[in-house]
Amino acid sequence: MFMLQVLLASLCLAAPSPDAGVLTSARVLEESSPSDWRLVDPEKTLYVDLPAGRVVIELATGFAPAHAQNIRTLAREHYFDDLAILRSQDNYVVQWGDPKADEPAHAKSLGSARAKLPAEFSRPAEGLAFTKLPDADVYAPEVGWADGFPVGRDPKAGQIWLAHCYGTVGAGRNNPADSSNGAELYVVTGHSPRHLDRNITTVGRVLAGMPLLSSLPRGTGALGFYEKPEQRVSLKRVSLASTVPAAERTDWEALRTDTPTFQRWLEARRNRRESWFVYPVGHVELCNVPLPVREVMRTRY
Amino acid sequence: MFMLQVLLASLCLAAPSPDAGVLTSARVLEESSPSDWRLVDPEKTLYVDLPAGRVVIELATGFAPAHAQNIRTLAREHYFDDLAILRSQDNYVVQWGDPKADEPAHAKSLGSARAKLPAEFSRPAEGLAFTKLPDADVYAPEVGWADGFPVGRDPKAGQIWLAHCYGTVGAGRNNPADSSNGAELYVVTGHSPRHLDRNITTVGRVLAGMPLLSSLPRGTGALGFYEKPEQRVSLKRVSLASTVPAAERTDWEALRTDTPTFQRWLEARRNRRESWFVYPVGHVELCNVPLPVREVMRTRY
Repeated sequence: MFMLQVLLASLCLAAPSPDAGVLTSARVLEESSPSDWRLVDPEKTLYVDLPAGRVVIELATGFAPAHAQNIRTLAREHYFDDLAILRSQDNYVVQWGDPKADEPAHAKSLGSARAKLPAEFSRPAEGLAFTKLPDADVYAPEVGWADGFPVGRDPKAGQIWLAHCYGTVGAGRNNPADSSNGAELYVVTGHSPRHLDRNITTVGRVLAGMPLLSSLPRGTGALGFYEKPEQRVSLKRVSLASTVPAAERTDWEALRTDTPTFQRWLEARRNRRESWFVYPVGHVELCNVPLPVREVMRTRY
Repeated sequence: MFMLQVLLASLCLAAPSPDAGVLTSARVLEESSPSDWRLVDPEKTLYVDLPAGRVVIELATGFAPAHAQNIRTLAREHYFDDLAILRSQDNYVVQWGDPKADEPAHAKSLGSARAKLPAEFSRPAEGLAFTKLPDADVYAPEVGWADGFPVGRDPKAGQIWLAHCYGTVGAGRNNPADSSNGAELYVVTGHSPRHLDRNITTVGRVLAGMPLLSSLPRGTGALGFYEKPEQRVSLKRVSLASTVPAAERTDWEALRTDTPTFQRWLEARRNRRESWFVYPVGHVELCNVPLPVREVMRTRY
């Protein structure tokens, strides 16, 4: 038996008003049907259990298959457990990994994960269904959604890539393009740094738990690194959802991005009909379109 | 005697590299001259002293003259002292004011400030020097900087307005457009909510101390309001800088936006020549251009 709970934060500044009869974001979700939602595959879902709660990540296996596979291996073998959040840079990213990754004698073993992966900055656009945002974009010839993720697309080059929006997860790297392997991950916690698009491998997005990351104290070292080990937040346990016992599982549904309901959602974001708005805007920027998720609440016996 | 300290956070993901000879953001600032900077007028500067430190705000007197004047009156009369941060909504705003503002019997007196002000969503563009960003924008016909603030501009309508970027400060309102008076203020702490542009009166920007606001725990009530009074952070003291004794003053300089140095700064943000970048980008979005500030360190005798 399932009960559903919508966990969306309202974006109005004023108190909610009835707005009866007009196309608002709230109404689009109220009128959505079960088939407008997709269950996020537990084989592609990471739980990052921090002392304060759970961050849930959907891996973009269609965009960074080698990285996603490696991260799944690392999670299955509990490589990340007891590593730490090393960095919180204001209006930018938090980043976690092995504090001793650069010390060959002390770095934690990657187990059966690969140390070296190809860069996966973008992929061929062909064969991937794309829901186009009708509005322009500063950074990409086209933007929209594919596989449920916000993306940029270049029809001339025939390439598509995950966009760096709030909550996007990427694989930290050094200067060589192919120097990431997924053992060090970052999450965007500030204004979307879209200049990173096509400059680094993006591996997914945070579905739930962003406040656990975004409200961390900022590190006072260069690039927001914590200067003292005791300032770091521990990654208590990082698991692939499919390997977690049912009693500890949380399952998530995401609003599909390839449906008429999503088109209504877009329209409700592009033209703000809530009574608070004086000027309805008429446009929306890719990263200002929230991608609704909801937790599937299981009643346990 | 003055010593200068650059308080810029680097935006690179990787460790800094020399990048000798190329036009990087770091180099533009290193090569800037004293005349590239302007002293922020203490008559337009608010100090918001929280228990954890000071947030510094520059008021946009040229954009919201009535609100800025009212806020200065409120600060001079210490209206805000001991009020509180009422709300922290993830990826959106923090907001402060009188928790009892809506209870006529208990609301704090506005003193000699005005209870009612006109809406100041935009102003005539004529007569205001404008530095145009050469890149497009999703929300405005033109974007750039005026009076040192990020702005949108509509040449046809002849209007200009402050853009909602990270750190922008606005005056909370209810549904009527003219229901703000500056006694309740919000600061953008998430991805820039540009759909608020021309929908609310913006009054300035945070020059320093953003992490004190952005890392606050998120409120768990609707719209991120704190549900229990003890969760609120106190505004210990909010002062107009010009009224603060010299020993407690911090003075700030901001990079001027109307100079050849600022054009170089823009160029260094539009085309990323740091060795970390594989793809130099070639564009930048208005709110992804940091506006450098530096504290004027006074040696006190």
